[in-house]
Amino acid sequence: QQFVGRDLAEVERLLAEAVASGPEPAASAARHLVAHGGKRVRPVALLLAAQCFGEVTPAVRELGTVVELVHSATLLHDDVVDEGMERRGVATARMRWGNGVSVLAGDLLLVEALQRTEVHAPDLLGALVGTLRRLVNGEIVQLRGRTELDVTEETYERVLRDKTAPLFAFATRVGARLGGGDAAGQAALAEFGEALGIAFQLVDDVIDYQGEATGKTLFADLGEGKLTLPLVLAVAAVPGLDEDVRRVHGGDRSLVASISRRVIESGACEEVRRRARQFTTKAIDALRPIEESPARRLLEVVAHQLAARVS
Amino acid sequence: QQFVGRDLAEVERLLAEAVASGPEPAASAARHLVAHGGKRVRPVALLLAAQCFGEVTPAVRELGTVVELVHSATLLHDDVVDEGMERRGVATARMRWGNGVSVLAGDLLLVEALQRTEVHAPDLLGALVGTLRRLVNGEIVQLRGRTELDVTEETYERVLRDKTAPLFAFATRVGARLGGGDAAGQAALAEFGEALGIAFQLVDDVIDYQGEATGKTLFADLGEGKLTLPLVLAVAAVPGLDEDVRRVHGGDRSLVASISRRVIESGACEEVRRRARQFTTKAIDALRPIEESPARRLLEVVAHQLAARVS
Repeated sequence: QQFVGRDLAEVERLLAEAVASGPEPAASAARHLVAHGGKRVRPVALLLAAQCFGEVTPAVRELGTVVELVHSATLLHDDVVDEGMERRGVATARMRWGNGVSVLAGDLLLVEALQRTEVHAPDLLGALVGTLRRLVNGEIVQLRGRTELDVTEETYERVLRDKTAPLFAFATRVGARLGGGDAAGQAALAEFGEALGIAFQLVDDVIDYQGEATGKTLFADLGEGKLTLPLVLAVAAVPGLDEDVRRVHGGDRSLVASISRRVIESGACEEVRRRARQFTTKAIDALRPIEESPARRLLEVVAHQLAARVS
Repeated sequence: QQFVGRDLAEVERLLAEAVASGPEPAASAARHLVAHGGKRVRPVALLLAAQCFGEVTPAVRELGTVVELVHSATLLHDDVVDEGMERRGVATARMRWGNGVSVLAGDLLLVEALQRTEVHAPDLLGALVGTLRRLVNGEIVQLRGRTELDVTEETYERVLRDKTAPLFAFATRVGARLGGGDAAGQAALAEFGEALGIAFQLVDDVIDYQGEATGKTLFADLGEGKLTLPLVLAVAAVPGLDEDVRRVHGGDRSLVASISRRVIESGACEEVRRRARQFTTKAIDALRPIEESPARRLLEVVAHQLAARVS
């Protein structure tokens, strides 16, 4: 990622600037989240998408900042929804400042993202709002599991389609457009981003079972009825698992380790990794019409790295 | 309000349509809030502002819907921030569906408002986003009182300026613009809306002390350190009151009735009503350059009614 290093450093500077001032205590909560890292995979994808066609202009870096701001805003609201205690190894903003601050800090970052888009690429505001609609839909469908356990693959696919992929697709489409790509180029990059986002989410789901400390606890996910594909597949394959998941959802913590073991033994994680690789392949195939370039090759590398990651 | 009756009915229909579908359970939470009324004062102001210059077009009714959707979205987030139990005489969405649903239902309505603006009046999207920024700022400054009690008039004025007035000003400016008003006409209506919004918020603050059951409890407001002008003025005038407010903020419920009595006895409520009337006058003065019309007279009536209301 040395290829995008300087531009990414500039995105970091813009991110820091975006949360440097602003009303307290929400600005502190926003800074807390933004400062504690994250992979910045959406800005990286956007920067590389632009470089498939042209230069990284100031507008490209601004929109790279926008996608990370939107992502951060959703995390601040997510933590309230999920009652998350830790993220990226530190206490969540809501644990430190309370739910209200986390909600308003999310609102603040969302408005910041919308305003920056309006200033630097007003034509893209409609597309950003459409993307937000899908992200919110995905969150809501996922949240539904809290009240009524629904471990069908159909519901899972609605979450998968809306929760993560739209912002990846927005990032790569916008990168292509601002970099000077034509309609076909933009469509190809959007397809790449969509498939990449799906692969990313699938791997995220597996890491909940296979990964080391990620600050999320499996019990919390199960207790909330949060749908992940390993669980959905295992429930369909392992007799009696459904019933035990319902018990955890009802509050019985004692079954978590046993469920986790049975999910892993069912081979569901390998199946999810396999599907993630399929989407990675799909993403890379989408780049075929794009002319060979270092940026295109790096997008392929990013896709492979995200599919292979274990944390 | 018979003058706007038919258009307001159409706004109601559009509002109902906006929350009719959409992902559950957030759509139900949004319907719950929208269906339990409210004065629809922002859409009324927008419709009348348009009629000061021209016809109520479909775009005017759509934007009338947008301002109520934005207002509803802020209430859904507010209730999470304030831990509100009741609103408009019924349980808040967060009490019925949980904090997470209330947050995401607010996000849903916000995105709906942005998308409708993008479809029906894309030129106004930037102004809407700027308005959202001010609303969020106002919420955050108000929230600050939760951690650190600050009953200065300066802080109160920041809340007053940002929390309510910008959406009123947006409503009347947009109405004027879509109704065909020129730049001066739009500016006059924006000034009217801004002053009207300030008067509205001041009266709201007094109602907390003077009003009958509004579903809000004074203890909650004091406990949260929520700034209202009667309190701010009384603290500046009544020796020892500051200390007692700090005790309530610390959790001592026993002093609420005594504080309420001393605020009322201090005459602060009359002073706030007086200031509200000043802003009402300012609002009505702002309409002077506008040609006489039934719509203009009705805006004046609305301003007087809002200043005089007791609930």
